[in-house]
Amino acid sequence: MNHEIRTLLEQVQTGGLTVDEAMLALKMEPYEDLGFAKIDHHRKIRNGVGEVIYGAGKTAEQIITIASHMVAAGQERILITRLDETKAEAIRKQAGFADAFYDATAQLMVVGGMPPHSGNGTIVVATGGTSDLPVAEEAALTAEFLGNQVVRLYDVGVAGLHRTLSHLPEIMEAEVVIAIAGMEGALASVLGGLAECPVIAVPTSVGYGASFGGISALLSMLNSCASGVSVVNIDNGFGAGYQASLINHAGKK
Amino acid sequence: MNHEIRTLLEQVQTGGLTVDEAMLALKMEPYEDLGFAKIDHHRKIRNGVGEVIYGAGKTAEQIITIASHMVAAGQERILITRLDETKAEAIRKQAGFADAFYDATAQLMVVGGMPPHSGNGTIVVATGGTSDLPVAEEAALTAEFLGNQVVRLYDVGVAGLHRTLSHLPEIMEAEVVIAIAGMEGALASVLGGLAECPVIAVPTSVGYGASFGGISALLSMLNSCASGVSVVNIDNGFGAGYQASLINHAGKK
Amino acid sequence: MNHEIRTLLEQVQTGGLTVDEAMLALKMEPYEDLGFAKIDHHRKIRNGVGEVIYGAGKTAEQIITIASHMVAAGQERILITRLDETKAEAIRKQAGFADAFYDATAQLMVVGGMPPHSGNGTIVVATGGTSDLPVAEEAALTAEFLGNQVVRLYDVGVAGLHRTLSHLPEIMEAEVVIAIAGMEGALASVLGGLAECPVIAVPTSVGYGASFGGISALLSMLNSCASGVSVVNIDNGFGAGYQASLINHAGKK
Amino acid sequence: MNHEIRTLLEQVQTGGLTVDEAMLALKMEPYEDLGFAKIDHHRKIRNGVGEVIYGAGKTAEQIITIASHMVAAGQERILITRLDETKAEAIRKQAGFADAFYDATAQLMVVGGMPPHSGNGTIVVATGGTSDLPVAEEAALTAEFLGNQVVRLYDVGVAGLHRTLSHLPEIMEAEVVIAIAGMEGALASVLGGLAECPVIAVPTSVGYGASFGGISALLSMLNSCASGVSVVNIDNGFGAGYQASLINHAGKK
Amino acid sequence: MNHEIRTLLEQVQTGGLTVDEAMLALKMEPYEDLGFAKIDHHRKIRNGVGEVIYGAGKTAEQIITIASHMVAAGQERILITRLDETKAEAIRKQAGFADAFYDATAQLMVVGGMPPHSGNGTIVVATGGTSDLPVAEEAALTAEFLGNQVVRLYDVGVAGLHRTLSHLPEIMEAEVVIAIAGMEGALASVLGGLAECPVIAVPTSVGYGASFGGISALLSMLNSCASGVSVVNIDNGFGAGYQASLINHAGKK
Amino acid sequence: MNHEIRTLLEQVQTGGLTVDEAMLALKMEPYEDLGFAKIDHHRKIRNGVGEVIYGAGKTAEQIITIASHMVAAGQERILITRLDETKAEAIRKQAGFADAFYDATAQLMVVGGMPPHSGNGTIVVATGGTSDLPVAEEAALTAEFLGNQVVRLYDVGVAGLHRTLSHLPEIMEAEVVIAIAGMEGALASVLGGLAECPVIAVPTSVGYGASFGGISALLSMLNSCASGVSVVNIDNGFGAGYQASLINHAGKK
Amino acid sequence: MNHEIRTLLEQVQTGGLTVDEAMLALKMEPYEDLGFAKIDHHRKIRNGVGEVIYGAGKTAEQIITIASHMVAAGQERILITRLDETKAEAIRKQAGFADAFYDATAQLMVVGGMPPHSGNGTIVVATGGTSDLPVAEEAALTAEFLGNQVVRLYDVGVAGLHRTLSHLPEIMEAEVVIAIAGMEGALASVLGGLAECPVIAVPTSVGYGASFGGISALLSMLNSCASGVSVVNIDNGFGAGYQASLINHAGKK
Amino acid sequence: MNHEIRTLLEQVQTGGLTVDEAMLALKMEPYEDLGFAKIDHHRKIRNGVGEVIYGAGKTAEQIITIASHMVAAGQERILITRLDETKAEAIRKQAGFADAFYDATAQLMVVGGMPPHSGNGTIVVATGGTSDLPVAEEAALTAEFLGNQVVRLYDVGVAGLHRTLSHLPEIMEAEVVIAIAGMEGALASVLGGLAECPVIAVPTSVGYGASFGGISALLSMLNSCASGVSVVNIDNGFGAGYQASLINHAGKK
Repeated sequence: MNHEIRTLLEQVQTGGLTVDEAMLALKMEPYEDLGFAKIDHHRKIRNGVGEVIYGAGKTAEQIITIASHMVAAGQERILITRLDETKAEAIRKQAGFADAFYDATAQLMVVGGMPPHSGNGTIVVATGGTSDLPVAEEAALTAEFLGNQVVRLYDVGVAGLHRTLSHLPEIMEAEVVIAIAGMEGALASVLGGLAECPVIAVPTSVGYGASFGGISALLSMLNSCASGVSVVNIDNGFGAGYQASLINHAGKK
Repeated sequence: MNHEIRTLLEQVQTGGLTVDEAMLALKMEPYEDLGFAKIDHHRKIRNGVGEVIYGAGKTAEQIITIASHMVAAGQERILITRLDETKAEAIRKQAGFADAFYDATAQLMVVGGMPPHSGNGTIVVATGGTSDLPVAEEAALTAEFLGNQVVRLYDVGVAGLHRTLSHLPEIMEAEVVIAIAGMEGALASVLGGLAECPVIAVPTSVGYGASFGGISALLSMLNSCASGVSVVNIDNGFGAGYQASLINHAGKK
Repeated sequence: MNHEIRTLLEQVQTGGLTVDEAMLALKMEPYEDLGFAKIDHHRKIRNGVGEVIYGAGKTAEQIITIASHMVAAGQERILITRLDETKAEAIRKQAGFADAFYDATAQLMVVGGMPPHSGNGTIVVATGGTSDLPVAEEAALTAEFLGNQVVRLYDVGVAGLHRTLSHLPEIMEAEVVIAIAGMEGALASVLGGLAECPVIAVPTSVGYGASFGGISALLSMLNSCASGVSVVNIDNGFGAGYQASLINHAGKK
Repeated sequence: MNHEIRTLLEQVQTGGLTVDEAMLALKMEPYEDLGFAKIDHHRKIRNGVGEVIYGAGKTAEQIITIASHMVAAGQERILITRLDETKAEAIRKQAGFADAFYDATAQLMVVGGMPPHSGNGTIVVATGGTSDLPVAEEAALTAEFLGNQVVRLYDVGVAGLHRTLSHLPEIMEAEVVIAIAGMEGALASVLGGLAECPVIAVPTSVGYGASFGGISALLSMLNSCASGVSVVNIDNGFGAGYQASLINHAGKK
Repeated sequence: MNHEIRTLLEQVQTGGLTVDEAMLALKMEPYEDLGFAKIDHHRKIRNGVGEVIYGAGKTAEQIITIASHMVAAGQERILITRLDETKAEAIRKQAGFADAFYDATAQLMVVGGMPPHSGNGTIVVATGGTSDLPVAEEAALTAEFLGNQVVRLYDVGVAGLHRTLSHLPEIMEAEVVIAIAGMEGALASVLGGLAECPVIAVPTSVGYGASFGGISALLSMLNSCASGVSVVNIDNGFGAGYQASLINHAGKK
Repeated sequence: MNHEIRTLLEQVQTGGLTVDEAMLALKMEPYEDLGFAKIDHHRKIRNGVGEVIYGAGKTAEQIITIASHMVAAGQERILITRLDETKAEAIRKQAGFADAFYDATAQLMVVGGMPPHSGNGTIVVATGGTSDLPVAEEAALTAEFLGNQVVRLYDVGVAGLHRTLSHLPEIMEAEVVIAIAGMEGALASVLGGLAECPVIAVPTSVGYGASFGGISALLSMLNSCASGVSVVNIDNGFGAGYQASLINHAGKK
Repeated sequence: MNHEIRTLLEQVQTGGLTVDEAMLALKMEPYEDLGFAKIDHHRKIRNGVGEVIYGAGKTAEQIITIASHMVAAGQERILITRLDETKAEAIRKQAGFADAFYDATAQLMVVGGMPPHSGNGTIVVATGGTSDLPVAEEAALTAEFLGNQVVRLYDVGVAGLHRTLSHLPEIMEAEVVIAIAGMEGALASVLGGLAECPVIAVPTSVGYGASFGGISALLSMLNSCASGVSVVNIDNGFGAGYQASLINHAGKK
Repeated sequence: MNHEIRTLLEQVQTGGLTVDEAMLALKMEPYEDLGFAKIDHHRKIRNGVGEVIYGAGKTAEQIITIASHMVAAGQERILITRLDETKAEAIRKQAGFADAFYDATAQLMVVGGMPPHSGNGTIVVATGGTSDLPVAEEAALTAEFLGNQVVRLYDVGVAGLHRTLSHLPEIMEAEVVIAIAGMEGALASVLGGLAECPVIAVPTSVGYGASFGGISALLSMLNSCASGVSVVNIDNGFGAGYQASLINHAGKK
């Protein structure tokens, strides 16, 4: 944004832009206003990724409108998260996105297909149990959408330590590990102790009773005695996949 | 208590006791009233152990009075928990308990010495870190006071899994494991997955920030995905040692 | 696991296994990977019991697949918990488990029938009210599945103390007591004061208002002033039955 | 207050008061303004008791000023609660209240002595343990200050049920029972089930770990499955004694 | 219960009862065991009221069985609380309780009609808003079921103080006030400051956002700066009506 | 109210009113009692606005009754909040309010149309995302109902700061800003730092996981490091619009 | 800030500023960087008030440095909040602020004296009890520092309603009311119902037990059923005074 | 660890190691047992960094013993965190670490000096206010200890957005941003929206009232609507610095 401001100022200096035009540019350029939402077409340039539509609380119509404007603006790939099956079906029918595919477990849709791998190495997505799969797939598919190679290690919870340990090679070769677990959330600490790379922990709302919808796992992960562990919101597979991608692309700027 | 009631009723039937005497016995026998406290001399018979004095919130004088009445009533051994050094010193000076010893880490005093081992096997007391020692020693010494052989495994937290695993033999041979940890409390789940015996988990108030004085470890332990784990109150080393002793003496009734 | 490692190392030493075969064995042996889940066929040997399937969040198809692999691997008895009636019906129809029975109150299925009693004595399962029955039956049937004799004492809440006291003989003869209660959870303390054996407390989510889905009972039980009480997760009848069985089989190793 | 308004209006009607005087009376009469506090001299008439000074957060000087104004206004007896020993000493020295006595356990001072008993019967003040004594004495002395006969039953916690049961006669003859307990707070339910009168439960902040400064006992008491139990704030011995007195004087209006 | 024990002991003494019969009596008399529930036929004698059936979590069949046993045992009046309309309809059809009436607002059924007033005076039931009516009617009808005259003051919330003040006469003449409010729960403090009698506060789960299902009102009421206020569980209209009745009948033993 | 009391007293003085009539007036005048609700016809005079009906928990019939009495009493405009579409439809059909309009997003109905703008300036209603619209429209329409000009700035969340900054002119010219956001609620702080006027922050229950139904945003807003920010209840668009109107009309008394 | 940007752009256009100078200005002008803190000299222009120093967590030396830079920059008046007596003394000695005065109750210092009243009317600062005075004085003195006339109504808690009502005239004539209370926080609702102006509620940490350091009052105030009430952080007297001043100066832009 | 296992197995195969020696190696090698603590000399190899001593809850003597063993084992640099000034002084005197330096703000000691920069780029450490400095310095010095170049941006809180924006170039050129803030924690979202790299958010316990010791900032950061933000424990500057270093060294394996 800084460079844009400089360019703008230079244009003002040379008379290429009037003051009013510059004012307008400073305010209006970065997004397109649809009334109910504002699309950020420059985001790809600024943040290095395609735009993502958070589907929860939006109607199929709103999503189609937003996505169509993105496509019209030249966006190659779009990721729509938190999208239930009914809305996905409606979008597929009405929007005419020929190459869109929908993953019912992860509740997300990808328009424009997956890009080639561009990261430094692999991202390991590990879960404590089978109930953590929806969150894990949201993380894994998000990472793949952002150009990463993903290794899935599911159901490797710490109460059966041999399952975890049998995957030591994958864990130790990863560039980033995403540790996904509900209940007591101990997976983050165990993987944090084994891995040599950053671990992003995702607490899940899986469980009952004193798991309190993921609070138990969240606190457990925040208190991890392993260094190198940071945490995202409960069930936030997208956030974990997104940050993992940033890390896997680190040093490439 | 049931048998006592029957005996009492039989004595009433045979005229050995008047109705009033029986009423009195039903009400008065089980304890001695000191005004500020009621001592339970029959507890040893009923619950199989010596009486314990919870020292927190009692003055040295009150503790001496209670302990002296116990000694006078024939109690062989007394355990005083949550006793700070100042009170311990005062008690040692004034009470004349020749054989009392005080452990400053565990904050407890034992009068009458430790009994011989009488349990089925060993009790493993394991901690996640060195800061958990006070709680661990409260548990270990309580267990020893109740006639158990204790194996101490300290600083075997899950972020350095090799430390835990190097003690597999002791863990797998134990009759009971006491898993003591603050922060994320993952030790309980890992030990619960490795051990073949009951695991009693003790969350500790060690930590800072989102450990919330032990709540994080408590929730983590309650949500353990390992079967065979139950939990006592935060920092309750005594409770863990007590129940571990009951379990280590199981089947001996 | 330790002995297996030794055996493995000895085979490597004598040339019975190549290094790569040993590596493989160390990692792969203990479980069978179904993709969405990993079955632990060695668990019976390691932990002394049959495998249990936690049914919540698994489809009928997934459960049938897992159970069939277990049967194929020689597992004699299988316990499926947290299984609703619809899934149970589907499993019974499709899986062809001739001897499976389903308990609608406890929401669990047993394949292979109940084993004979093998414990040291009886396990008392007591509840504060009639609404605690689902949790109580989960605990009781789990304990029976693991070879224990169970005595059920239902609706003996402390607000009607005479109901509790009329069962003193059963309580005092038990090897383990499971105290199940919602609301104020006082049953654990009262039974903990009466019994001579370990008491496992199970808070239930029964109640309304400030019971906060079982938090009130949970805190109450964690703070029990009776020694010998430990606690499992809210509504965790299975966990209580499982640990009670371990205790009832203590000293039999 | 209603009758005062009527009297006032009648005086306005008959010319005994001007409108302005009536306005003034409506606003000013009920209290005396000391700047930092407003004393309510009519409270005895309205609420049937003497004024009470809540000592916490007031200086000795402020308390003396308030109390002196009360004495000057003809108040026979004054109760000062939450008063530490240092302030009590200062008040005794400077205020010249010849007949004031201070109770260090209850942290309260009574000026003007205790009145004769005027209630319907007795108020039982029962505690679960000896650490609950400060709250219990605050309740008991408040009740005595308000003209009630008090029976103290201390250290009758439910983990030693025989202690509780041995006092059945006192409990069943009471007009009100005040049940004071920390930790799991089960005493309220047990007494609520035994007594035939209202039970006022007072949770105390006694305990550690998951007692959370009295929250455990508070929730437990609010969820009591015994009918006839209501609850006051944590450690609020005064409030319990006050309401118990109202109940013990019921039907005497 | 004490007198019964004495009588029992005297019968044993005189040979009127064998020891075994006495044992049996001590244990069995107070209730009838239906398997899923235990009915307390002596409760009327012990606690002065008819038995109440808590309908939540019981089937219509279970309730009919319990109620029928009560009627068979001579119980004149039965109160069934937390009973939804469907179950109420089923009970009315199948049980043949000719005189049963059901109140849909309060969700309760009364079998046997209301008794005449027997208390010292009136019980005021006041609510902050119209949404508190279900809880208020549960309280009011419970009180009427227990022989009390009830004055209903609905929608007198403190944000419109004149509504509250216009009912000063009723408030000041009451023997007990039940203050029912959700949201900020200030009604209890305002009524507590105006009334001369005990105030029982009932927080309701009415509200949204930071009312947290009644926690806001609960805390507000527990912290009331008015003396003479005690609190029951959120939405516990029954508990408030029950205790109010005990107080309104105080001094009548 | 003060002036009314004075007028009343003067009428009593001059004989224009008897004492009883004055008593009656003091109590009865300010509202009309419908049994289930009390309407406050004088509120417009006292508080400067029309009466508002909080629709949640009221039946369509109750709302029609209340609104009809208001219309009959001369109320020009009525606002009904928290009104779902079904009830709105019923009211429109049955009540015959020709000019009523219903907003489905804001869940509110306005009878009598919007008044002309009467405030000092504009009220900016800003939201962090598109999911906050229902709360935002409740605030905006409430403000318009009370005679204010509203500027809507939707989807200007702080993670895309350029969107916020492009609206600096509107923000800096506002008389009041209403900042509405869920999740992390940072919008309030950012707007609080930019605006020169009071900012009313409304946390919304939008979000998932650790947003805890709006608690995260609520705490964030309460802790705003920007001066001039105050907060209303979670999702309380009405409250924000109401107070904003008071502020926008300040100095006009 | 908008106008400054325009001016800047115009200067660039006319050659009055180079692009680099403009860049510099855009970034550097608004504050002065002291290393450990950044002073905002333009704030007075932007937000209409003098700069305030939040004293908590700053050393006397740091505060003197900041304040001296402000004075040097021409700041007429400085308010230092959360300043304990020791630091205040040090500042007075070392800084040479001849006209500084320190208020020990409010824990704040004013340098440069109080300005004349410039608001639309009066700000009423009301408290529930005498313990709320420190917060009240912080609010009152902050308001006076910002040019407002303040009316103090202390100890007018709702449990003694006549105290509140006797101040109706002041309350009804206010431009803003600040309602300060701990414990149950009902004062905000009562004043909100009586006043015709915005009410800013300040919960205080006064109280014990279930007041939870101000949470009870905070929730109570957020849930106020009176319209026109908004809330600031617990004990945030400054924030309330600041916003009250903004409101009292509303319409004066 | 995997490679070590392979090497070990190969040595067993070739007879270079006996089975018992291999068993020993598998268990004993990775750490040195000091009794109260276990030092992990291989950690540098496994995790790429020097060992860190968490000083809280350890005596000066314990720390010296651990550090001396590390030095003896060839460790070049040691970081001791959470070390108060008194212990630091004692260590400096007794341990003879010539080159140790202690930072009183960050409460940490570095033995062996700082290494040269080895990361991909810079780590920005930004704080919301000056009170966050201790946490910020812990993060910054930890990062420097691990070979990173750090840019400090202190006191750039979002309520003065121009301060944040004036540092856009540093923020946009960073490889990692550490966003440290208490109170409302909005800094993480704002920086997350501006930066193109991973943002690690650290909530601090700075604040009062509803900041609840950092909970407000923690929740705010977990709910950040900016992608690419993850969170560590409250006040965990070390953890943030550690993970930032891992990320800044990413792609260098």
